[in-house]
Amino acid sequence: MAEDRRGRLRGGIDLGGTKIQTVVVDDRYTVLGKARAPTPTTGGPPDVAAAMARAMRDAARDAGTETSKLTCVGAGSPGAIDAKAGTVTSARNLPGWHGSYPLGRKLAELLGAPVALGNDVQVATDAEAQLGAGRTYSSMLGVFWGTGVGGGIVLDGRPWLGQGGAGEIGHVVVKVDGAICPCGRRGCMEAYAGRNALERRARELHAKGESTDLFKIAKKRGRERLTSGVWAAALERKDPLATKLVDRAVEMLGAGVASVVNVLDVEVVILGGGLGVRLGQPFADRIAGAMAPHLFHDNRPPPLLVAALGDLGGAIGASLLEPDGE
Amino acid sequence: MAEDRRGRLRGGIDLGGTKIQTVVVDDRYTVLGKARAPTPTTGGPPDVAAAMARAMRDAARDAGTETSKLTCVGAGSPGAIDAKAGTVTSARNLPGWHGSYPLGRKLAELLGAPVALGNDVQVATDAEAQLGAGRTYSSMLGVFWGTGVGGGIVLDGRPWLGQGGAGEIGHVVVKVDGAICPCGRRGCMEAYAGRNALERRARELHAKGESTDLFKIAKKRGRERLTSGVWAAALERKDPLATKLVDRAVEMLGAGVASVVNVLDVEVVILGGGLGVRLGQPFADRIAGAMAPHLFHDNRPPPLLVAALGDLGGAIGASLLEPDGE
Repeated sequence: MAEDRRGRLRGGIDLGGTKIQTVVVDDRYTVLGKARAPTPTTGGPPDVAAAMARAMRDAARDAGTETSKLTCVGAGSPGAIDAKAGTVTSARNLPGWHGSYPLGRKLAELLGAPVALGNDVQVATDAEAQLGAGRTYSSMLGVFWGTGVGGGIVLDGRPWLGQGGAGEIGHVVVKVDGAICPCGRRGCMEAYAGRNALERRARELHAKGESTDLFKIAKKRGRERLTSGVWAAALERKDPLATKLVDRAVEMLGAGVASVVNVLDVEVVILGGGLGVRLGQPFADRIAGAMAPHLFHDNRPPPLLVAALGDLGGAIGASLLEPDGE
Repeated sequence: MAEDRRGRLRGGIDLGGTKIQTVVVDDRYTVLGKARAPTPTTGGPPDVAAAMARAMRDAARDAGTETSKLTCVGAGSPGAIDAKAGTVTSARNLPGWHGSYPLGRKLAELLGAPVALGNDVQVATDAEAQLGAGRTYSSMLGVFWGTGVGGGIVLDGRPWLGQGGAGEIGHVVVKVDGAICPCGRRGCMEAYAGRNALERRARELHAKGESTDLFKIAKKRGRERLTSGVWAAALERKDPLATKLVDRAVEMLGAGVASVVNVLDVEVVILGGGLGVRLGQPFADRIAGAMAPHLFHDNRPPPLLVAALGDLGGAIGASLLEPDGE
């Protein structure tokens, strides 16, 4: 393996429902290069893999290297990950990704480097726990508020994965018989707070005549989707529909996250994800306020902090992955 | 310490919101004697302690021994337990128990035996995990459906207590802006499913003219409260109000327990508590059915089993406690 004078360099890819973020880090996890690209909205897994490889190459170029010189490239992906087999199955929010796809092998071919796969939410949680806002706590809940709402759990300093599927906090029921979630179930927290759900609701209400600049802002920015930046801009100009929908999201995040805190009694809650990082501490504080009436131990609410690694956390977390899996 | 020819005998006391259950067990946790008494509904902590001591003496007599010959008596109590100090603070659902009370010292005086204190839900969880329905699983969620709805968590074979207050599954929010819970908050699972909440709602609706035999059945049995037995009898005779309220409780338990399973992905859920044990596997199956539409990993629902130690689980669990605390 080639050694850069800056030590062994590693790559990290965060595959999100909206964007692909890549980084190159040194052995102290300092970010030397980065790149970002939109996640393909059409096609299938090979198109997503090609877009990931392009974004990884861009980050390598930004760091003054090339992907074949990287010690390892880690990729965090939604869906069911088999790290040893290098496959990703049923990745929700990604185009045409219903079956199993050998993402690890494909990326290794395209990049000329060893590739390790992990769950997107788990790698972002590990990054915050080891390097970010959670590093001084032994138990934490990571809340990743983006396209969906993901959760990562660290207990006694170790990730809690259950039987492999723990942390689905987006699918905590906050309202029995409530709104239909992108997952098809009813009343999930994600049905009110996930960006996909917010966008769908905004389109419905806009079609029914509610006034909003959300779609104008998106168009002006050349976006097909209502990205976190579009929501942030609309909130800043006090767009009534955006304000109403995000107020509701905050209320539901408060109830759902408080429920999980009542169950786990963790020391800290860390807010990440595209929307969480973009809206930042003022919204973390609003969510904390919305949690307060539901917290059982209300005399000692856990601090709610924004992810310290920002929207690079997922990619930096992916760079922590080791190629042998696990 | 006196040795019975049956080995070292231990006592266990389960202090519930409705009843006090006591056992004497041998060193293999076989129950040699037991007794039960109603929890005082008036007075204060000293009255509760006296009732606990009487019930413990009755169990000792039932086992052909006396309390001063017991190696240790463990007591599981609601409220905040300081096991080392032997105090119980703010025990909800118990009369006049707002401050701190030295329950350990008081019981030791009354019984002439060393006393160990533990949290009622946690000792019942430990009993099921070590000796009961959970003994073949490494992760479990205990759901104690009784006066309130308590939860006990075992992960990787060890209790998860968080910062000391984990497992408050009764206060998972199942309906934002929903019914007022006995805890004062809104929309908690316990607000729909706990026996105190069920009784309060039954009284309200009965006062408004809804027909029910619940109070007649209670009166006939000499009960001031709607005990689990009263609810079971009313359900058996298809009492319309009892049926409606318990149907709603089952629906809300399904949503709330599924939410916790989505977060923790445990291997098994165990249903205990006065109502859970009394209504038994048919209701465990109904709750499992109510969970199904909310489970994220719906292809592998965890088994939902009734507590194998029945309503003795809390007292047997208390007998596992060691007098040095922890």
